Amino acid sequence: MVKFRCLIPAFRTGWFARPTTVNHGHVSNSFLHDFLDEMQAENIKHHLRKFTRLPHLAGTQQNLDLAEQIRAEWMEFGLDSVELVPYDVLLSYPNQTNPNYISIVDHLGNEIFNTSLAEPVPEGYEDVTDIVPPYSAFSAKGQPEGELVYVNYGRTEDFFKLQRELGINCSGKILIARYGKIFRGNKVKNAMLAGAKGIVLFSDPADYCANGVEPYPDGWNLPGGGAQRGNVLNLNGAGDPLTPGYPAKEYTYRSGLEDAVGLPKIPVHPIGYHDAVHLLQHMGGPLPPDNWKGALNVSYRIGPGFMDGLNQNKVRMNIHTNNQVTRIYNVIGWIRGAVEPDRYVILGGHRDAWVFGGIDPVSGAAVVHESVRAAGKLMKKGWRPRRTLIFASWDAEEFGLLGSTEWAEDNARVLQERAVAYINADSAIEGMYTLRVDCTPSLHTLVYDITKKVSSPEEGEEGMTLYQSWHKRDNSTERDAPWISKLGSGSDFEAYFIRLGIASGRARYTKNRKTERYSSYPVYHSVYETYEIVERFYDPSFRRLEAVARVRGGLIYSLADSLVLPLDCVEYAMSLTKYANSIYQLALKHPAAMQQHSVSFDSLFSAVENFTVAAGDFHQRLDQLDTSNALDVRMVNDQLMYLERAFIDPLGLPGRPFYRHIIFAPSSHNKYAGESFPGIYDALFDIENAVDQQKAWDEVKRQISIAAFTVNAAAETLKPFVN
Amino acid sequence: MVKFRCLIPAFRTGWFARPTTVNHGHVSNSFLHDFLDEMQAENIKHHLRKFTRLPHLAGTQQNLDLAEQIRAEWMEFGLDSVELVPYDVLLSYPNQTNPNYISIVDHLGNEIFNTSLAEPVPEGYEDVTDIVPPYSAFSAKGQPEGELVYVNYGRTEDFFKLQRELGINCSGKILIARYGKIFRGNKVKNAMLAGAKGIVLFSDPADYCANGVEPYPDGWNLPGGGAQRGNVLNLNGAGDPLTPGYPAKEYTYRSGLEDAVGLPKIPVHPIGYHDAVHLLQHMGGPLPPDNWKGALNVSYRIGPGFMDGLNQNKVRMNIHTNNQVTRIYNVIGWIRGAVEPDRYVILGGHRDAWVFGGIDPVSGAAVVHESVRAAGKLMKKGWRPRRTLIFASWDAEEFGLLGSTEWAEDNARVLQERAVAYINADSAIEGMYTLRVDCTPSLHTLVYDITKKVSSPEEGEEGMTLYQSWHKRDNSTERDAPWISKLGSGSDFEAYFIRLGIASGRARYTKNRKTERYSSYPVYHSVYETYEIVERFYDPSFRRLEAVARVRGGLIYSLADSLVLPLDCVEYAMSLTKYANSIYQLALKHPAAMQQHSVSFDSLFSAVENFTVAAGDFHQRLDQLDTSNALDVRMVNDQLMYLERAFIDPLGLPGRPFYRHIIFAPSSHNKYAGESFPGIYDALFDIENAVDQQKAWDEVKRQISIAAFTVNAAAETLKPFVN
Repeated sequence: MVKFRCLIPAFRTGWFARPTTVNHGHVSNSFLHDFLDEMQAENIKHHLRKFTRLPHLAGTQQNLDLAEQIRAEWMEFGLDSVELVPYDVLLSYPNQTNPNYISIVDHLGNEIFNTSLAEPVPEGYEDVTDIVPPYSAFSAKGQPEGELVYVNYGRTEDFFKLQRELGINCSGKILIARYGKIFRGNKVKNAMLAGAKGIVLFSDPADYCANGVEPYPDGWNLPGGGAQRGNVLNLNGAGDPLTPGYPAKEYTYRSGLEDAVGLPKIPVHPIGYHDAVHLLQHMGGPLPPDNWKGALNVSYRIGPGFMDGLNQNKVRMNIHTNNQVTRIYNVIGWIRGAVEPDRYVILGGHRDAWVFGGIDPVSGAAVVHESVRAAGKLMKKGWRPRRTLIFASWDAEEFGLLGSTEWAEDNARVLQERAVAYINADSAIEGMYTLRVDCTPSLHTLVYDITKKVSSPEEGEEGMTLYQSWHKRDNSTERDAPWISKLGSGSDFEAYFIRLGIASGRARYTKNRKTERYSSYPVYHSVYETYEIVERFYDPSFRRLEAVARVRGGLIYSLADSLVLPLDCVEYAMSLTKYANSIYQLALKHPAAMQQHSVSFDSLFSAVENFTVAAGDFHQRLDQLDTSNALDVRMVNDQLMYLERAFIDPLGLPGRPFYRHIIFAPSSHNKYAGESFPGIYDALFDIENAVDQQKAWDEVKRQISIAAFTVNAAAETLKPFVN
Repeated sequence: MVKFRCLIPAFRTGWFARPTTVNHGHVSNSFLHDFLDEMQAENIKHHLRKFTRLPHLAGTQQNLDLAEQIRAEWMEFGLDSVELVPYDVLLSYPNQTNPNYISIVDHLGNEIFNTSLAEPVPEGYEDVTDIVPPYSAFSAKGQPEGELVYVNYGRTEDFFKLQRELGINCSGKILIARYGKIFRGNKVKNAMLAGAKGIVLFSDPADYCANGVEPYPDGWNLPGGGAQRGNVLNLNGAGDPLTPGYPAKEYTYRSGLEDAVGLPKIPVHPIGYHDAVHLLQHMGGPLPPDNWKGALNVSYRIGPGFMDGLNQNKVRMNIHTNNQVTRIYNVIGWIRGAVEPDRYVILGGHRDAWVFGGIDPVSGAAVVHESVRAAGKLMKKGWRPRRTLIFASWDAEEFGLLGSTEWAEDNARVLQERAVAYINADSAIEGMYTLRVDCTPSLHTLVYDITKKVSSPEEGEEGMTLYQSWHKRDNSTERDAPWISKLGSGSDFEAYFIRLGIASGRARYTKNRKTERYSSYPVYHSVYETYEIVERFYDPSFRRLEAVARVRGGLIYSLADSLVLPLDCVEYAMSLTKYANSIYQLALKHPAAMQQHSVSFDSLFSAVENFTVAAGDFHQRLDQLDTSNALDVRMVNDQLMYLERAFIDPLGLPGRPFYRHIIFAPSSHNKYAGESFPGIYDALFDIENAVDQQKAWDEVKRQISIAAFTVNAAAETLKPFVN
C-alpha cells in the first residue's frame, strides 16, 4: 500500500474547496469591458472579406503577401513590434503538369474511369488562378494498381473487424475509406500497417451533408464535386518532418527524406462523392455491416475487387505529388507588458488556407485581427497589459502545424520559463448552434467567467449572456455548467500544450453535437470554404464571430492583466479525479488479468488525492495573499504558471517523444481526440490480444507508476516552498 | 552562410566587456564575513573524528544511524526543518558466506594461488566489524576461467592498440587492467565491448604511490594489501538502475534486472598490488609498450596466458556479489529564504562511505556540517538568507550517485523552476598543494571573489589570501588567474548540472597536478581512508579543510543572499568561444573529409558570437538596473538563473538520454572527465575508422547544428524580453 502524504479530511476536497470565480481581483475591469466592446461584428466581417479574396496556401507568394499585409496592419493598430519569422520546412504540392487522379482500369490496362482533376469553382471565383486541386499532402508518389477494399472510416476498430471478423486481408490492396470520425493521417497509418498499396479517401454524404440542407451555393452542404484536402502525416508533434526537435532554420541539419518523420509510404488521394460512386458501385466481396453503409446510392460491398463479370477491373492511383523544402512565414506581434514583460500570454492562429479559407482559418484569423485592433485602440487610451501579449499568425498549419511548432521549438527555452498561457485561434465557427470550448482544466473557471461578460449572439436571446445561452444548449453531464472538453490536437496549440506544458485553450462556435451527426462541417477543406458561406449561412450578422472574438480576447486580456493569474488548480484536481476513475474503469474490464498481474491503481488515486489537497490548500492560501507584496504575488503566480509544466515528462510518451504531457495527449488512434492518462490508455489498448501478457501488463504497471509520480510531483509544486 | 543577427563591434566582446567582479552589491558583507569566520578548523576536525569511527556503507544500519544523528544535529544547529528522504534503490554487496577472489588454476583445475579476501585492517580499527572487503559493486556473478590479457588502463585507446596494432583478441579472455586515468566503469564497458569474460582491476604502485612517501600508516601511500572498491556501472546519469528517469519510491515500477541500466554483464574484481604481482609475473605474449609498464617488479607481458612451461595455467574469477533493492536515506535540511523562499541554493555532498570514509566523503561531509552549524549560528544573530538554502547529505553516492539522482528525479519540477545553483561537497581534500575548482563558467567570477575573502591555509603564507596562494601555485594557461576546470562527473552534482541544467560547482584541496602523477589519492576507496590519514598527513592543522569550507560556504552564502545573482554570463561566453575553437581544431584533423562532406562550423561560431554580444549587453543593462524595483530585480535574476537551463536539450545526447547538457557532459570514454560540446566530440571520435563515412559526417553536421541552435537559444534568453 502506498503511503499517503497526509490524511485528507473530506470537507477540503472537490467542489467544497472550489472558488466560485478565480481570483483575478485586480484586473482593471473597466478596460476589460472596453476591450470586449471594442471588438465588433462589422470589423470582423470586413477582415474576413479582405483575407479571403485569394487563395493563400502555405509556401506561396500570396501567403507571404498576406503576411506582409498583416504585419503592416498590426503595426498600424499599435503593437510595439511585429516581425516575420521564416522557417524552411518540408511542404508538399501536386505536380502542376502531371495531375493526380484515380482510375478504374480494365483487364487490358485501359483507364475506363478517371476521377475529376479539380472541384467545380464556385461562382464569383472563376477567374482565380492558383487554386490547388484536392490532394493529400505528403502522399507518396506512385501508380499502384490493385483490387479495391472498402474499410469504412479506416479506424483501428474497422481494421480489427476486417481482419478478425471478416477475414479480409488488406495486404497488397488499394483501400478506400470514407472521411470522418478520425484524423485522416490515422487512416493512412492504419492502411500502411495493414500492408495496403495505397488508400483513397472519399467524402460520403452521410458524413458531409446535413439533413435538409442544400449543397453549396444554395446551402452549406458539400457538393458532390467537392473533396477534402489535407495532410496525411503522422508527425506526433514533431513539426517539420526533416528537423524534429529543432527549428527549421537556414543552418539547421536536415535528415534525408528516408529518415523524415511521419511521411506515408503509400499513395493517398481524396475524392468527392460523385467520383466515389464510380469506385464503390459493383464492388465484390461480402456485404458490409449495416453501420458501414454510407449514404451513397450504391449497394455497398467490401471487396476485394469488383463484381464485373470477369472480375478483372482494378483500381489505379496516379499520384505525382512532390515534397519540397519551402520557406514559410509566421507573423509575430508583441505588446510589451507594463509590469512583468517577462510573462507571455499568446493568442495564435494560422493564416495559411487550402484555398480561400473562408472558415478555416480566416474566420479565426479575422478574429485575431480584430483582437489586435482592439488592443491597439486600448493602448491609445493609455492601457498596457501587466504582462506581455504575443499575437501569432502561423503559417503551414495545414501541413502539420509546422509554423507554430517550429516557433515553439525555436523559442522553447523562453516559453518554458515565461509563457503563462496559449489561446488558439483556428476557425472561429464550424456550426450555428452554440459555443464550444476545449481547454486545460485550470482555465475552466476563467472561461465561465468570461462568457458571463459576453452577450449571446443568438437572435431572440437579447439580454442573455453567452454563458446562459451556452449553458442552456449544452449542459455538462457532470455538473450544472456548460460542457467543456479536453484538448485533442489538429491545431496549433499542440506544441504549446502537449510538448511544452503551457496552459492552453480554444473556443469556437459549433453545431449541436447531440443532433448533428455529420463530421466537422460539410465544406471543410474544399474550395467552397468562401467568404460567402459564412456571410450567407454560418453567421450573417457576424455576431457569432464577435462572440468568439470576445471569448478569446477576454481570455488573453484576463491572463495578461490580472494581478493574480486566473488559473484554477481545484478544477485541475477535479478533472484528474475524473480521469483516474475513468482509466480505472477501463482497466477493470480485465478483472482476472488485473488480479493475476497484481495491477493496482492505488498509487494513482493516492496521488490524485494528494493533488486535490494541495490544490485546495493552495487556493486557501491564495485568499490570504498580501497582494501589495509584488514578490509574494509573483511567487504564487509562478506556481500557477508552472502547474501545467509539471505534467510534462521530458522522456515523453512511449514512441512519441514530442507528446510529453502525462495527463493529455492526442489519441494514438485519432489525432483530433484528446486522451487522458494516454500512457496508461495506450498500454491497455487491445491488451487482451497482446502476445506476451506479462510484458503487456508490466507496461500498464509502469505507466500507472509514471502517472502517479507525475501527479504527485505536480502536487508538490503547489505546496509551500519550504518543507 | 549563416546570417548574423547583428554585427559585433570588437570592443564589446571578450575581456573588454567583462565585469571585474560580479554584481553582488547588496549582499550583506558583514554577515558574509561572520559566516566565513564562524567556520573553524577545530570544529571540522571534531566532525571528521565523530563521523569516521565506524564504517557507514550505503544501505546499512550504521549509515541510517549516521543520518539520524545528522538530522538531529542540523535541527539543533537551527535549521528550519530537516527530513530523512528514503528511496529503495538497487545496491550490491558481496556474499557474506561466499567470498570473492581471483585464482590461478593449474591444468588440473587446482587453485594454486588465491588473492586475499580482505585488506589488513589499520591499527586501532582491529575490533571494527562490518568492514566490507574490496569488491566491484554491481559485478556480475560468475566463475569464469580463462587466459589472462593485460590491457594497461583499459582505456579506449588501450584497446585500440591491442586490437589494431598488437593484434590481440580479448574475446573470451579474462582481462587485467590497472586502475587510474579513467573511471573504472568505462574500463569494464570497454572489456565487455571487447568480448572479455571478466576483468580484474589492480592498483599499480605507479598510479597509487607518490614518490618518497611510505605506505600507510607510516605515510599516505597505498599499502600493497590495499585495494580500491567502487561501482562498475555505466549509468550515464540514470540513477537507480531499475527506475531510470523516476524516483525509486515504494510505489515505483521497477524493471527486471535484465532491463536494468548500466549493469556489467561480466564479473569484475579489484585487487591490490601484492596480489597483482602473482597474476602478472610470468605472463606470456608480446612485450608491452614502455608506457604500459607499471612499477611492479615483474617483467610485464601482455598475454594471453602465462609462460608456465605447459602454458596451461589459467585465471579463475570467483564472484558471488548480490544485487539487492535496499532502502537508502538522504538527509535534507532547509533554511527558508526571507524574501524569495522559492529560490533554492543547494549545498550537497554524500554521507555513505566504502569503509570509514576519512577522506571520501567525510572530509566533505564534515565541511557541510560546519557550514550548517555556522548558518545556524548566524540565524541566531538575526540573519536569514534572501533565498532558501538546502543542505543535503546524500546516500549511496558510491553506488552510482543514487541518493542525489533520485532526489533530483523526485524534485525535478521544482528544481527546474526554482534552483539557482548547486554546490557539491564530496571529499574536501585529495592533496596538500592548493585549491582545485571545477564549475560552470558563470561561477568563475564568484569563485575568484570568494577566494579573495579567504586566507591561505598554508604555513608561511600568513597574510596571503587563498586566491593569491592558489594563483601562485596553479595559474591558468589562458589568463592571469587561477586555473578552474570544467565539471566532469563521478560525484553528486551530475543530475543537477548535466540533467537539469542548474549552475554547479565544486571545490577541494588538491595535489600539484603538474608534478604529482599518481591517480586520485593513493588510499582512495581503501580501508586506509581513516581519520588519522587526514589528521597526520593531509591537514594536521585542519586549515586546508577550513579554507575549503569557507569557499563552499562563501559560494552558497553569496548565491543565496546577493540581491542580484552573482553569475557571470560573459565568462560563459568566453568559455563557449574557447570550446568552439577547440572542437573546430579537432575537426580540422580531417581536412579532406571536412571538405568532401561540406562540414562547416560557421553556424556554431556565429551562435557563439551572438551569445557573446547578448551576454555583454545583458551585463551592461545590469549595471543600470533599478535595484529598488523588486520585480525588475527578480526578472533579471530569472534570466541569470535560467541561463544554465537553456543549455539543456530535452532530447539528450545520442544514446545518453539523461545527459542533456549540450555544452558539457562526462566523456563517453571516462566518466570523471568533462567534455565540451560532447555531441560533436563523440560524433568526431575515431571517425576515420567509421565504416559509413557519409553517415558519420552527417552526424557531425547534425551535432554542429544542435550545438549552434542551443547556443543561439541560450543567447535569446539573455536578451530583452520583448522583440
